[in-house]
Amino acid sequence: MFVVCLDLEGVLVPEIWINVAEKTGIEKLRLTTRDIPDYDVLMKGRIEILKEHGLTLKDIQDVIATMKPLDGAKAFMDELRTFTQAVILSDTFDQFAQPLMKQLAWPTIFCNTLIVDDKNMITGYKLRQKDGKKHAVEGFHSMNLKVFASGDSYNDLSMIKEADGGMLFCPPQRIVDENPTIGVAHNYDELLAGIRKTIDQCR
Amino acid sequence: MFVVCLDLEGVLVPEIWINVAEKTGIEKLRLTTRDIPDYDVLMKGRIEILKEHGLTLKDIQDVIATMKPLDGAKAFMDELRTFTQAVILSDTFDQFAQPLMKQLAWPTIFCNTLIVDDKNMITGYKLRQKDGKKHAVEGFHSMNLKVFASGDSYNDLSMIKEADGGMLFCPPQRIVDENPTIGVAHNYDELLAGIRKTIDQCR
Repeated sequence: MFVVCLDLEGVLVPEIWINVAEKTGIEKLRLTTRDIPDYDVLMKGRIEILKEHGLTLKDIQDVIATMKPLDGAKAFMDELRTFTQAVILSDTFDQFAQPLMKQLAWPTIFCNTLIVDDKNMITGYKLRQKDGKKHAVEGFHSMNLKVFASGDSYNDLSMIKEADGGMLFCPPQRIVDENPTIGVAHNYDELLAGIRKTIDQCR
Repeated sequence: MFVVCLDLEGVLVPEIWINVAEKTGIEKLRLTTRDIPDYDVLMKGRIEILKEHGLTLKDIQDVIATMKPLDGAKAFMDELRTFTQAVILSDTFDQFAQPLMKQLAWPTIFCNTLIVDDKNMITGYKLRQKDGKKHAVEGFHSMNLKVFASGDSYNDLSMIKEADGGMLFCPPQRIVDENPTIGVAHNYDELLAGIRKTIDQCR
């Protein structure tokens, strides 16, 4: 039995924080794990910026509600789910994911949770666990499942390396250069082909 | 973060082998884990019976293609997936599950695999792992997920006991009598209420 672990932002939907930055005009919110690999440093900075600007969880949810999955992402997921299992592993949050998961027909997602105060301000976040994407692959292995993993960013490298097969998906050139042994998919057709090849090899 | 682990047959779809028994008129194929708790004994018997009657995988797939999820199962899954994650843990097989998963809008399922020869006869099966439902709950725990589990039969007891919360769903009275400490849901509304209660308790 086989499961495909997919990053969310940059693979199936646009970067949420970049959209928030564009709608709010706050340039500093554009930074992602592509720019700052340490996720805790990145998130604490984001929460501080939101506080400075008085932005609530609902303000950000209103932005997310206007977003759509990337072109072709829904068709890719629909095709993928006809021939194997898929689980999205993301560093986003319960409270952000829901409107996007609905548009993708509710695939399974494991992610993190925001801590919100009684004024709807984000005060912190609860990680599912440190290096949660890699641990998820290890957990699936403990269930005797074979795993294919794909993502576009630094925080996806450990899950891709832990998996039985994997590819970077439309990553920045810097990550490609730093990880020459990991294959690259430039579109969903190439990703589907890589997944099918790995499933055949694991039979 | 929370995940709900659900048995398939008897909880979301009818018992597949009972349907095959009815369509083929082979009474011995009616036996399930409700009758024979040792799954390997049960499956080897089923494979022997199919061989005696010359029934191929395709014959059984044709029967499954005529089946529907249980009344209310699709609406239950649709509701469940709006507020938490769900994974189906089943002792059925890849080759059997697909037409039923399609009707339930492709929830994630971890199950077993049939071994089929070049005449399309089922010659054996590959368990994902022994006591795979319990190990799946342990695997989700290793991902720092809280788990609710539900099923109707003997092979669901270990996953229910391993989970943070769980209920039997429309079980035979014998299993209720033998497991007086496990709650019972008699319909999907009661199951949803039990799931919501456990999620609140795990917060």
